[in-house]
Amino acid sequence: MNIAGKHYRTIWLDAEDPRVVRIIDQLALPHRFEIVELRRFSDALSAIKDMRVRGAGLIGATAAWGMYLAALGEGDRSLPEEAGRILKAARPTASNLAWAVDRMLRALAGPPEGRVERARREAQAISDEDAEYCRRIGLHGLRLIEQAAERKGGEPVNLLTHCNAGALAFVDYGSALAPVYAAADRGIPVHVWVDETRPRNQGASLTAWELGRYGVAYDLIADNAGGHIMQHGMVDLVITGADRVTSRGDAANKIGTYLKALAARDNGIPFYVAFPSSTFDFTMEDGFAEIPIEERDADEIRRISGQTASGGIETVRICADDTPARNWGFDVTPARYITGLITERGICDASKAGIRSLYPECEPE
Amino acid sequence: MNIAGKHYRTIWLDAEDPRVVRIIDQLALPHRFEIVELRRFSDALSAIKDMRVRGAGLIGATAAWGMYLAALGEGDRSLPEEAGRILKAARPTASNLAWAVDRMLRALAGPPEGRVERARREAQAISDEDAEYCRRIGLHGLRLIEQAAERKGGEPVNLLTHCNAGALAFVDYGSALAPVYAAADRGIPVHVWVDETRPRNQGASLTAWELGRYGVAYDLIADNAGGHIMQHGMVDLVITGADRVTSRGDAANKIGTYLKALAARDNGIPFYVAFPSSTFDFTMEDGFAEIPIEERDADEIRRISGQTASGGIETVRICADDTPARNWGFDVTPARYITGLITERGICDASKAGIRSLYPECEPE
Repeated sequence: MNIAGKHYRTIWLDAEDPRVVRIIDQLALPHRFEIVELRRFSDALSAIKDMRVRGAGLIGATAAWGMYLAALGEGDRSLPEEAGRILKAARPTASNLAWAVDRMLRALAGPPEGRVERARREAQAISDEDAEYCRRIGLHGLRLIEQAAERKGGEPVNLLTHCNAGALAFVDYGSALAPVYAAADRGIPVHVWVDETRPRNQGASLTAWELGRYGVAYDLIADNAGGHIMQHGMVDLVITGADRVTSRGDAANKIGTYLKALAARDNGIPFYVAFPSSTFDFTMEDGFAEIPIEERDADEIRRISGQTASGGIETVRICADDTPARNWGFDVTPARYITGLITERGICDASKAGIRSLYPECEPE
Repeated sequence: MNIAGKHYRTIWLDAEDPRVVRIIDQLALPHRFEIVELRRFSDALSAIKDMRVRGAGLIGATAAWGMYLAALGEGDRSLPEEAGRILKAARPTASNLAWAVDRMLRALAGPPEGRVERARREAQAISDEDAEYCRRIGLHGLRLIEQAAERKGGEPVNLLTHCNAGALAFVDYGSALAPVYAAADRGIPVHVWVDETRPRNQGASLTAWELGRYGVAYDLIADNAGGHIMQHGMVDLVITGADRVTSRGDAANKIGTYLKALAARDNGIPFYVAFPSSTFDFTMEDGFAEIPIEERDADEIRRISGQTASGGIETVRICADDTPARNWGFDVTPARYITGLITERGICDASKAGIRSLYPECEPE
């Protein structure tokens, strides 16, 4: 991710001081670009819980660095299993979190000597792999944008995305937005419809921000507008990310994704889900029945933060004080509404057979 | 509408001073309940344009009273046709606006003597009819809630609605919410899922407020959540309002309604549209191709107002300053996704034949 001419990842180990992990504070965006230090296991845990970091891949990478910090800080958490259990409970829906913790636990097993070094190497490997897999997702997804561009004879390809599955949701590149960046790099005209993504507005605050920094054309829209623009031929392709994908291709993603999949189907628009294989959960088949859906604090519905005219950050309540509200973080899009899955190994059908064709080693349990 | 024990309409002529029309200021809700005076044609026009009044029926009634104020104020607007033209241009999508203006123009035609009195009577008739038609919509729609209550054996009936088609959207009672109030009056347990309805949040600020004042159980949700709760059996019935309905039953309503209709269809949940006959536009058949969709200021996407912890009203920007955005106010739900239309004459299929069965006198042109 390039910000003001400098390359950033969303999380990295300090080059000089290996006791410090740094992250981009995503709660400060889009109003301020701030780097925050993680020095203890509890810092990493809070960053995940408070959503200073969010997005499937980045949650996984932060959990990995959290396990490293736990190993580093003797008094912090003596047992990796305990640290792993606490991390897994922080956000229940994204597969990548448990996947990264389990990888770290395997690396931490064995003799106590060299444990910190093994943890550092594994966390770095998880980060590097996340970035590299997203880069490949970009190249595979690029073909879909190229094909659409060919059909449109030079007119911009209009893509719709929901929430943020961009560079900010991973260590770099992103999943849903990686193909957009790959297209932009090649001079293919592309325009993105950015769902604001209530209640936490990751579209408005993160996707719009990172597309703008990259120089990609986009328009922010209300989540409600997606159906209307699909009805009117203003969308060529939908790509979203995913937080957990089952063995048959059901995909949990940010609440509201399912509604966009229905509208895409109703209007004959291809609907793709892009994610690295760390997002697969092969222990599950029926995403609707099996994927745990996080229910979050209802204050996220009642209150919203932003920048005032004088430049300060203020939180306002948009309903009466006593308003009851419910707040689910994710929904599940059934595989039948998904045109294809874009992973680091290529594009496949959202079906058992399709997934096995790319991941033959990952037979469901 | 009962507010703190007192009955209110959303618009009324002052009982003592017939030069003053009063409205509930819907921009002040839910944080303050304020009554605003309309004394000139331009006051009524501004109230419609600025959305101090909104909702299909109330826009129509306010336009009628605006025409009355124009007739009253000699110097204000001498030609009713000119006033009518300006009013019709204020909000393009809702049929009720043009319908009310045309009724007023017919009443104003003829001899100049008695014109003001004829205008007053006609505006009062439009208001009374709007309230009465909504009351009847409530009784027809009540049957659907009663049937659902029977199926559920005493468990609360869960209804989902989008935007505000309650008492605040009409002169009284509302369209989509009139059946809810009729059920509540009869002690039938009913619970409403209230879409917050971005970008202007009429669900959060108006529907939640009026349901709360009436003592109806409800929960505010993000617009994105409707699909998830329908997938999980948490919705028995969807009822929305409409701003314009064509001769074959295509319905324009608040942006995002179409997405809810798709989700209802996908989950086998009945989806009804409730409106008085003033919302019909029999000159149109294909709602998708013919109904004009208002595009509004993109700042409605970028900025949001609410109450701060200290009690003041503040506007905050939720995205970067230079964020491009688009903002359509309505979308069109094709008749094929609508289970039925609830009007003052009863419930009918969303089809030419269904509509003619209730409105045989209104042959399409």
